[in-house]
Amino acid sequence: MKIDRVLLAHGSGGLMSQQLVEEIFKKEWNNSYLEPMLDGALLDLPAGRVVMTTDSFVITPLFFPGGDIGKLSICGTVNDLVACGAKPLFLSTALIIEEGLPMSDLIQIAQSMARTAREAGVQLVTGDTKVVEKGSADGIFINTTGIGVIAEGIDYRPQRIQPGDLVVVSGTMGDHGLAIMARREGLSFSTPVNSDCAPLFRIGQVLEAFGGNVRCMRDPTRGGLATVLNELARQSGRGIKVVEEDIPVNPAVAGACDMLGMDPLYMANEGKMVIVLAPERAAEILAELQKIDIAAEAAIIGEVRAEPAGLVLIETELGAERILGILEGEHVPRIC
Amino acid sequence: MKIDRVLLAHGSGGLMSQQLVEEIFKKEWNNSYLEPMLDGALLDLPAGRVVMTTDSFVITPLFFPGGDIGKLSICGTVNDLVACGAKPLFLSTALIIEEGLPMSDLIQIAQSMARTAREAGVQLVTGDTKVVEKGSADGIFINTTGIGVIAEGIDYRPQRIQPGDLVVVSGTMGDHGLAIMARREGLSFSTPVNSDCAPLFRIGQVLEAFGGNVRCMRDPTRGGLATVLNELARQSGRGIKVVEEDIPVNPAVAGACDMLGMDPLYMANEGKMVIVLAPERAAEILAELQKIDIAAEAAIIGEVRAEPAGLVLIETELGAERILGILEGEHVPRIC
Repeated sequence: MKIDRVLLAHGSGGLMSQQLVEEIFKKEWNNSYLEPMLDGALLDLPAGRVVMTTDSFVITPLFFPGGDIGKLSICGTVNDLVACGAKPLFLSTALIIEEGLPMSDLIQIAQSMARTAREAGVQLVTGDTKVVEKGSADGIFINTTGIGVIAEGIDYRPQRIQPGDLVVVSGTMGDHGLAIMARREGLSFSTPVNSDCAPLFRIGQVLEAFGGNVRCMRDPTRGGLATVLNELARQSGRGIKVVEEDIPVNPAVAGACDMLGMDPLYMANEGKMVIVLAPERAAEILAELQKIDIAAEAAIIGEVRAEPAGLVLIETELGAERILGILEGEHVPRIC
Repeated sequence: MKIDRVLLAHGSGGLMSQQLVEEIFKKEWNNSYLEPMLDGALLDLPAGRVVMTTDSFVITPLFFPGGDIGKLSICGTVNDLVACGAKPLFLSTALIIEEGLPMSDLIQIAQSMARTAREAGVQLVTGDTKVVEKGSADGIFINTTGIGVIAEGIDYRPQRIQPGDLVVVSGTMGDHGLAIMARREGLSFSTPVNSDCAPLFRIGQVLEAFGGNVRCMRDPTRGGLATVLNELARQSGRGIKVVEEDIPVNPAVAGACDMLGMDPLYMANEGKMVIVLAPERAAEILAELQKIDIAAEAAIIGEVRAEPAGLVLIETELGAERILGILEGEHVPRIC
């Protein structure tokens, strides 16, 4: 493509829109679903219950340590499907581009989406591109909507959480949030912190074999671990008690958070799951999780109790117990 | 809700995000799918082939004669499903809101989405809300992604178009584009022009009964009738010949377009279909279409020929024949 920036005419629906689709998206995302160039994609769905989930990504900066908005836009929706207990299959992608975005950025983002989709085993089956005037958006916003299928015997609704269940996180907390903040503020650390942005379908695959022993799963993105635990407590009507020193936090993240007065338990993650397990096979499930690279540092961080219903308690490193509240106000805007 | 404008914290994923969802979206869009408040919705799909389509809406102004961005966001995706031959069933909705949007605007848009979804028989099953800083978006952008099911015997791929087929439009061309342009430019006409924005599922219902006699359908949105005809000609490898004086155009639109030097054949429609019919039952199908209010002015505007393959010809009102090209460059930005 000879034009080096995105123009309004690329969103016209006419000739230049077609060229953009042909020369970038069809080229990078090539698959048989996109081929017919219809207004929609005909899906080839296997047996199972169908799940739909949607997310828009407005992160700034577009490129950050450990990923970019393209990779993030695939991981975010794939991980929501995994959290529902579904095998991720199909994604739609809808781009809102600010006039003037360098074409090289768009190509890099499209390639990143293609690579991450391949890695996650999903196909980008249908899309839409809009272009708005300079100043009416900030670079590019991406929506992905995902379709997946839940296998027989899988039910990850929070209502299934029982007292005595164990709470697991699949790895360190806060990496994504801190990496973005550091990049925005121009902070650098002796140990660089990368976003944990990753597709987590392999966690879903491991857990599927354990059927009803997996009670519930949720990805702690915006609002972080603390907010997800509060959602689970509220939606299940149970209490959750976690132990601060059992929660894995990358030492560089812990140090930076200390310095900045931030709390890693409220920072977004884009490659982690919170998993509630029945106690019976929890040790075995944890060991299986730890065998996959994206969950090597999985750890039990607490347990479910009958009381205090709907609340989350945390035992601090000093041995005190306090309520761990939901995120109030804004923490780090445009983190995903 | 006591806060009268959308704040960044409404997009935090924390407490204020929950409040926004509970007090506006769950209230307005109330249905059993939204109830569990999970990251995704479990769909109850009937038998049939499943279609997925996505569109983002970035129209300005947000409120316009004949509709608003909320109504448009439902119609656009419903109509894409109808054009694929599908019965529209489920929509996801993802909002990107500019900080400072009046809460009353958001509520009005949410209500408009709910009303239009009810009218179209679709359910809003899952959603996402992001808020970006003032100046990083323009009011609100809405993505909707739709799922529908195609009945046995329905196949509207353009490859099915044959020489001798007739080309029908379901009503007047250019109303939406002109209404938006007039509103933006502060133009007023003696006869007010409204957007034709409407969900077209009833056109789908009427056509379904005629099976293979309906070859193909497409909604002429961005790029207008001329662009859609060119897509159909190119994708089918056929020629299309239309007669200018047979194309219905609202007289007020024709007059305003004359004055402004615009061509209604390139202007966006949001409540119209282009339908290609086998000649055998075309008159009967046209009569059935004209019985429904949204297609009362449906008309045959041309026919399919073997040659010139991939091109569209128009017989002008003066009797000359010329090539009707695809939209080049930008016509009216942010029309949908």
